[in-house]
Amino acid sequence: MQSLKEERAGSPSRGDPRFMRQAIALAAGNVADGLGGPFGALVVRDGQVIATGVNQVTAALDPTAHAEVTVIRSACRRLGAFRLEGCDLYTSCEPCPMCLAAIYWARCRSVFYGNTAEDAARAGFDDSFLYQEIRRSISERSLPMVQMLAEEAQASFVAWREAPGKVLY
Amino acid sequence: MQSLKEERAGSPSRGDPRFMRQAIALAAGNVADGLGGPFGALVVRDGQVIATGVNQVTAALDPTAHAEVTVIRSACRRLGAFRLEGCDLYTSCEPCPMCLAAIYWARCRSVFYGNTAEDAARAGFDDSFLYQEIRRSISERSLPMVQMLAEEAQASFVAWREAPGKVLY
Repeated sequence: MQSLKEERAGSPSRGDPRFMRQAIALAAGNVADGLGGPFGALVVRDGQVIATGVNQVTAALDPTAHAEVTVIRSACRRLGAFRLEGCDLYTSCEPCPMCLAAIYWARCRSVFYGNTAEDAARAGFDDSFLYQEIRRSISERSLPMVQMLAEEAQASFVAWREAPGKVLY
Repeated sequence: MQSLKEERAGSPSRGDPRFMRQAIALAAGNVADGLGGPFGALVVRDGQVIATGVNQVTAALDPTAHAEVTVIRSACRRLGAFRLEGCDLYTSCEPCPMCLAAIYWARCRSVFYGNTAEDAARAGFDDSFLYQEIRRSISERSLPMVQMLAEEAQASFVAWREAPGKVLY
């Protein structure tokens, strides 16, 4: 299994302002179109745009449809892969924790962002709060989280360890 | 805008072992079916299963298709809503940071989980590493993240603040 800890292939690229301007234009355009929040993103590889995405939470009735998640899904479909190795992600705003983790799972090479999480908070989005929550231990979070049936749950990982021919990701 | 910080409606329920057993069975079944990782999840409201989900990263070529993200999307489609207020999420394993943040964005009421992130790490999944990374400041992370065009990027949030009739989420 290729660990998230391993070195990424290639050296991080320098950001290209043309791609960031495109992400910002997507974000502003999404507001003008009334499709969702002010967020746009691109996946770029070797100087080519692989996919673009915008926030579609309210239009698609999908709380996970942030611009970065949307563009990762779209780029993976385009490339026929579940990893985006060698790809850079441009986003009009620093990713929220959901999107940041998605970027790691997708193995993107680098992230270029415009606004910060604090800028997002000032615009009414809870990204900063979410970073605080995720840094807390389970018992300190505002979301109640309770472990159950710990012994029985091990069965799923036993099945995984023993499964022949599984596709690692 | 309903903030993530606000109190959740209703008091957290006690977990129902039947639903957790179903999540664990989904996880083990997903391995047996060869569809993806050993993870299963349910969204439950008022004692009724609204949706079920499994990890589909490799089958769907979607690195964001963890069981919890999959079940949140499915439950939102079923309910025709971009929030899952009053819903509990049962998952065979403690959510990774992507899924945990998705659960906050979806406004789930409570989370019940079987395995821990440390159990997942022992089974070969990088959830614990990802929690460490997200707790770090941007400059300390292994993923290169660079801010660009900060002033120009403000245009997207200005557009949002000034947009009439926007749908808050």
